[in-house]
Amino acid sequence: MTEEQIREKVQSALSPKRFRHVEGVVQTADRLARLHGTDPDHARLAAWLHDYCREWPKEKLLQTAKQHSVNEMFFEVTELLHGHIAAAIAPEEFGIADEDVLNAVRFHTSGRPNMSLLEKVVFLADAIEPGRDYPAIAEIRKLAEEDLHMALALSFDNTIEYLIRRQQPIFPLTVVARNEIWRILKDGRVV
Amino acid sequence: MTEEQIREKVQSALSPKRFRHVEGVVQTADRLARLHGTDPDHARLAAWLHDYCREWPKEKLLQTAKQHSVNEMFFEVTELLHGHIAAAIAPEEFGIADEDVLNAVRFHTSGRPNMSLLEKVVFLADAIEPGRDYPAIAEIRKLAEEDLHMALALSFDNTIEYLIRRQQPIFPLTVVARNEIWRILKDGRVV
Repeated sequence: MTEEQIREKVQSALSPKRFRHVEGVVQTADRLARLHGTDPDHARLAAWLHDYCREWPKEKLLQTAKQHSVNEMFFEVTELLHGHIAAAIAPEEFGIADEDVLNAVRFHTSGRPNMSLLEKVVFLADAIEPGRDYPAIAEIRKLAEEDLHMALALSFDNTIEYLIRRQQPIFPLTVVARNEIWRILKDGRVV
Repeated sequence: MTEEQIREKVQSALSPKRFRHVEGVVQTADRLARLHGTDPDHARLAAWLHDYCREWPKEKLLQTAKQHSVNEMFFEVTELLHGHIAAAIAPEEFGIADEDVLNAVRFHTSGRPNMSLLEKVVFLADAIEPGRDYPAIAEIRKLAEEDLHMALALSFDNTIEYLIRRQQPIFPLTVVARNEIWRILKDGRVV
């Protein structure tokens, strides 16, 4: 499939508002990939796909996740399933088989430990695309250009604080990922 | 050993300031246990022991934790080891073998899923004893008398927010425990 065909297929699956978000993530992921030295074509592909199943009803998400043997830990927070399912059906529906692209789709909501550069870029692009708005976004946008790990750390912390304010579940793997990024920042290691 | 002998042995292991904290936890755990219907003698015992190893040097904590086969997940955050070690040596040093008391000592810093009533009482007593002071404490103290689970939920959230402000690691099991307490509160289940 060409990128234009992928774009059209994604557009047909989403509301106009959600599709504008996806276009924003594609644009941002492309720019961040070039800035930080990973493949912009892969970043755009993952960005096009990341929310492909975002508007599925909960029942369809759960049923499809079971069919594709998505790890049970992701069933507890329904908001995490859509990325895993998009990655599971992408080889057949879009002809995309690159594991790094699929992982960037899978983990764009939760993050995980040992994220690849592509996963980090797509995760952040989703958080800071032009349509997003929340108190910390100006700082995270600025850092995303200059210091990818600091931007990621603040983005994780911002998400955890948001979930606390909303009394919503915090996914433990997100906390493991967040701790790891702060450890990288403090050790001064480049990963 | 009598409670007075335990008190003296704990006092001899701690700085005066830390021992005043322990006395505050004993007093608070006793009151919360009576209020919420668990054994106040057990609550006081766990409270006396909870910080018995709090002032050990890091190397001694790590070495003793290995000798006593403390689960490796607790090695990542050194602040979590002192409770596990106090529980490990309590049978020999204090003649205390009650598993519920030992678990209240073990998990007083991190919490864990499926905490017993005694574990919850000791965890909260540690957070709100008279010597503690932080912005949310008045609300948590009030709730601890009226609604143990709401007090626990706010205490967990307060701890996580504190660790975020300090850029310190958040223990994933604490997040699992916190999610569980909010789920109990939202489902209206009594555990």
